[in-house]
Amino acid sequence: MIRIAIVGFGYWGPNLVRNFSALDDCQVTTIVDLNEARLKAAKKSYPQIVMTTSVDTVIRDPQIDGIVIATPVSSHYPLAKAALLNQKHVLIEKPLTDSKDKALELIELADRQQKCLMVDHTFLYTGAVQKMKAIIAQGDLGEIQYFDSIRINLGVFQSDINVIWDLAAHDVAILEYLVPEPVYSVVATGISHTVNQVANIAYLTLYYPSNKIAHFTVSWTSPVKIRKILIGGAKKMLMYDDLEPTEKVRIYDTGYQINSDETKNTILVDYRIGDVMIPKVGTTEALRGVAEDFLKAIGQGRQPISNAQTGLSVVSILEAADNSLKNRGKEVIIRSAKS
Amino acid sequence: MIRIAIVGFGYWGPNLVRNFSALDDCQVTTIVDLNEARLKAAKKSYPQIVMTTSVDTVIRDPQIDGIVIATPVSSHYPLAKAALLNQKHVLIEKPLTDSKDKALELIELADRQQKCLMVDHTFLYTGAVQKMKAIIAQGDLGEIQYFDSIRINLGVFQSDINVIWDLAAHDVAILEYLVPEPVYSVVATGISHTVNQVANIAYLTLYYPSNKIAHFTVSWTSPVKIRKILIGGAKKMLMYDDLEPTEKVRIYDTGYQINSDETKNTILVDYRIGDVMIPKVGTTEALRGVAEDFLKAIGQGRQPISNAQTGLSVVSILEAADNSLKNRGKEVIIRSAKS
Amino acid sequence: MIRIAIVGFGYWGPNLVRNFSALDDCQVTTIVDLNEARLKAAKKSYPQIVMTTSVDTVIRDPQIDGIVIATPVSSHYPLAKAALLNQKHVLIEKPLTDSKDKALELIELADRQQKCLMVDHTFLYTGAVQKMKAIIAQGDLGEIQYFDSIRINLGVFQSDINVIWDLAAHDVAILEYLVPEPVYSVVATGISHTVNQVANIAYLTLYYPSNKIAHFTVSWTSPVKIRKILIGGAKKMLMYDDLEPTEKVRIYDTGYQINSDETKNTILVDYRIGDVMIPKVGTTEALRGVAEDFLKAIGQGRQPISNAQTGLSVVSILEAADNSLKNRGKEVIIRSAKS
Amino acid sequence: MIRIAIVGFGYWGPNLVRNFSALDDCQVTTIVDLNEARLKAAKKSYPQIVMTTSVDTVIRDPQIDGIVIATPVSSHYPLAKAALLNQKHVLIEKPLTDSKDKALELIELADRQQKCLMVDHTFLYTGAVQKMKAIIAQGDLGEIQYFDSIRINLGVFQSDINVIWDLAAHDVAILEYLVPEPVYSVVATGISHTVNQVANIAYLTLYYPSNKIAHFTVSWTSPVKIRKILIGGAKKMLMYDDLEPTEKVRIYDTGYQINSDETKNTILVDYRIGDVMIPKVGTTEALRGVAEDFLKAIGQGRQPISNAQTGLSVVSILEAADNSLKNRGKEVIIRSAKS
Repeated sequence: MIRIAIVGFGYWGPNLVRNFSALDDCQVTTIVDLNEARLKAAKKSYPQIVMTTSVDTVIRDPQIDGIVIATPVSSHYPLAKAALLNQKHVLIEKPLTDSKDKALELIELADRQQKCLMVDHTFLYTGAVQKMKAIIAQGDLGEIQYFDSIRINLGVFQSDINVIWDLAAHDVAILEYLVPEPVYSVVATGISHTVNQVANIAYLTLYYPSNKIAHFTVSWTSPVKIRKILIGGAKKMLMYDDLEPTEKVRIYDTGYQINSDETKNTILVDYRIGDVMIPKVGTTEALRGVAEDFLKAIGQGRQPISNAQTGLSVVSILEAADNSLKNRGKEVIIRSAKS
Repeated sequence: MIRIAIVGFGYWGPNLVRNFSALDDCQVTTIVDLNEARLKAAKKSYPQIVMTTSVDTVIRDPQIDGIVIATPVSSHYPLAKAALLNQKHVLIEKPLTDSKDKALELIELADRQQKCLMVDHTFLYTGAVQKMKAIIAQGDLGEIQYFDSIRINLGVFQSDINVIWDLAAHDVAILEYLVPEPVYSVVATGISHTVNQVANIAYLTLYYPSNKIAHFTVSWTSPVKIRKILIGGAKKMLMYDDLEPTEKVRIYDTGYQINSDETKNTILVDYRIGDVMIPKVGTTEALRGVAEDFLKAIGQGRQPISNAQTGLSVVSILEAADNSLKNRGKEVIIRSAKS
Repeated sequence: MIRIAIVGFGYWGPNLVRNFSALDDCQVTTIVDLNEARLKAAKKSYPQIVMTTSVDTVIRDPQIDGIVIATPVSSHYPLAKAALLNQKHVLIEKPLTDSKDKALELIELADRQQKCLMVDHTFLYTGAVQKMKAIIAQGDLGEIQYFDSIRINLGVFQSDINVIWDLAAHDVAILEYLVPEPVYSVVATGISHTVNQVANIAYLTLYYPSNKIAHFTVSWTSPVKIRKILIGGAKKMLMYDDLEPTEKVRIYDTGYQINSDETKNTILVDYRIGDVMIPKVGTTEALRGVAEDFLKAIGQGRQPISNAQTGLSVVSILEAADNSLKNRGKEVIIRSAKS
Repeated sequence: MIRIAIVGFGYWGPNLVRNFSALDDCQVTTIVDLNEARLKAAKKSYPQIVMTTSVDTVIRDPQIDGIVIATPVSSHYPLAKAALLNQKHVLIEKPLTDSKDKALELIELADRQQKCLMVDHTFLYTGAVQKMKAIIAQGDLGEIQYFDSIRINLGVFQSDINVIWDLAAHDVAILEYLVPEPVYSVVATGISHTVNQVANIAYLTLYYPSNKIAHFTVSWTSPVKIRKILIGGAKKMLMYDDLEPTEKVRIYDTGYQINSDETKNTILVDYRIGDVMIPKVGTTEALRGVAEDFLKAIGQGRQPISNAQTGLSVVSILEAADNSLKNRGKEVIIRSAKS
């Protein structure tokens, strides 16, 4: 029996409790939140769980095996560090930390303590992303040429993090999972329409050592909700639309071929537009997969899918993008993020 | 009776002939093309029109009042210059020229010769863009905050110009028409997947002196065709989808309001999601409007909607974007483009 | 405090418990189900509620004020009758009963007992249907000319009732609510693809004394899910698409006008295609509205929106349709259904 | 060289002229129309074609091999009869005639005269219908269980024929082509909103000797345009959406299976929701295929795809539907329509 404490019971907390509670060999023993009214309401639904405002007590409680951190981003690092130092396994809401250096430090600490450090990039556990991973891994698309993501809606303006850290975190994690090639550099642009200068619209371009490109559009100020990713390969192309109820992934047997007699001056391109295939994708709740993977990683001493290295790569890219955005598109080189 | 010669009878030429022929007080007398087979085919449909391969003769022909140039971009400048020097009115397919300096020179020459110099940014004459112009001009959206355009499909790879000059030309012209505020700078990224290094995917960000931003996504390598523009205003937002058969423009009574007690640290944003309005838009063929405007501009000595100044602004932005793209997103400042 | 027992804890029961439990002045005291395993699972979530397999005890329990019946259709009548005889208020899942005569009897009994008898036509409480009711009631559409509904998907084959009683029940209730004119006759066709001869596809046409028509398409065997209603009025037309996440209702300023000089031989029709308006609709859970309306109807002694007379009208039409279907479209006249 | 005369130069006539003119070994020599202004306008575009108001002269002209009849439906029979008697091959716009008896008579006459009699059911020649034919013919869907078609829009009210003869003609022809099993009976309902009592909305149900059903919804008074057909098979299902620009046909690997232990009382149905496949379909103009097939049928003495027997079957069903509609859904048995 693995005993879990959930730290932070805001928007995501109830989903964490519900999913961890449903698993065998797992018990949610404690919920921590600074808001006592929130705890009181939680107690109604979960009379058997201990409610407390004292995170320190929980982190030092020897009865607890794992800590799930669902608090504002700036608190991820100190909470995780304290938990690891107290021999806890740690699952952190995305993004892992608010800087690459902190992420590196946590990874080293987790190694030293021989504890599991995991980040909750929930989308990696959706049926759609799992299906795309399988399609790409078996080479159906051929060499990946581009990755283009849009995630926009009329969304909650965050005060502590900008739209890159909030929304692009999802799509950069999907990219890192599907296309595991180190990014070379980042160019980001964007704007803030509020006085605190927290960007609410941003555009990221990622360059690779190879002939790939990735681009991200994120916004909290769109009247329409769009969540799409286009992935172009040398053989086929793919579109992922997260808002489609069932037809989330479409594979286009579509491409172009450079004629063999091309020169630098004249390019003759042949088109191919073929069938479209919409594979069935699994519909299990993604967060269930996250919870299961955390427990298995603890039990088997192996890395989960959404592991801290992926979390580190994501943070490295977001941090670089943030710097580029502040310098109006100045290219920021990413040094190897692997710890 | 205004006599017109069409120079270049490729993809767009037949549409030009058909639309100019249909107008009163206008006669298409001559078609010029270097491809004799093409001219022969054209002769079947238009036995009354002179077909020739000699552009020089046509440009010097005193019977001809106006020259419509629908040739590759690199030939726009020399052809237009010769035509203006020979007292012709000139209509040029978009983009006006392949450089800002050439555009400026043509504008000055047209002024000196007191001839009409017009560029065919056809989209400005669509019912949808005209409707958006009216909506924005009467202040329905409030102060414009962002403009975000996507124009992608599996398209013809051009050998002489990249996807910016080909596709972004349309949307930058629409932006210039709808939001006539001078752009401050451009950041562009992109990639070429062919050996000639002509970019087939590009992303442009335009910064303004004011708190506006514009962004453009263009690609010749998308398996799906998308042609959308989102325009956010302080009061309302708008989406233009050119692929919708009739419902091309949607006005969202949607927005957010910064609470009065906001500080730099805490922003409280109130949302408003209201009705959506889809206005009826005119369905007259846009190129008909281009042809009519050219004739009226000639007849009345006034500037057409899609005038050379707009064409110059567009070229200035495209040129700057091209430079930025070659330098991986280096911000390129745009000096005032007005001649 | 109104004390409620829920009879039947299958698909819909948990939603009923959750919604009634959330209301002030209301307590769900008892859940009845024949399946003990199901009751045991329910006990985990609702330790404070009594679980029992004995419906008789509950119906005779003087502590209980209202009975909510969410059992198979054939049991609606005997359960409701017993409950009314025992001085309970009764809310029944749609359809009210499986025959017009039984519905009439229940209504008379409820009258005699001075108890509330209500049917749960949940859709009447959605923001979309409420919005349509307001639009039609204030005359925006003009005289209604047609009502055309499609409700198809790959759905659960019922053994006791056919697709008319299962799916058309929803749309006929919406029709009865929006267009409260007595139906004159019904023509229904359909087919069963199973050996039990329970129709899985059906088509209903309703004729009116006036120049109206209503049509319903229902199917359990469609690979795509569609839930649409078109309503044509003399002035405007309306489309309701229940699967649209937010834009559920669209009002088309579209119509046709018969020219005044029309004769029986030559009809000249003028078209009008105008703006489209998508009003914002409320997003409160509809079942919450059902529960509130039941409590208010009990408390204030007034009829709820989804009252038994509406339930009776619906049952009368479904019964007639069933008879017509069995006779391959034979027109079945509906005698006034009002009790 | 086959010489063709086009009789009737209204909406469809110009398309016929353009397509026949483009074919080798074929010459459009004459256009007949009663409207002299229309002929004058046609002369501008086609100076080489003879324009005349005298259909008799044309039908008797020994220089003409084939007559294409694109006139109002009531004139199809007399014109085709005269043409056949004068040794012409005949292509008639759909529907073939306005009654089954007339269709039978024309077929017998064409047989006697050994001339080709063809009806222009253009949709049979679209890439989408050809693809569906191939899919069904090779058994991919399994035994067909249902066919459900919707063809509605804000359309031209016809004075001489109702919406069944106008719109359902298309979909019944597609049904006859794809599912060539004789129909047993028809039930039709509908309404007229004009004083001439010409129905503008109609619903048709077709029963078969086997366990199939077909249904058609047609309307001239819908604010939205829909053109969809659902076809359910025992193995797979298919959706055809004619308004999709490229993805017109979708094959769903979706179905249900009756469990082997089913009895008449309890049916246990297993669902299967699998991949969706969108095959590429040809994009050649369908009318080109019609013209080619007519010429080949003449040249090779064989039956075209859209032959008169198909036309007869369609007319038989439409006539029966018309009769059923006038009797509010009275089932009308169709006696074998084969001549």
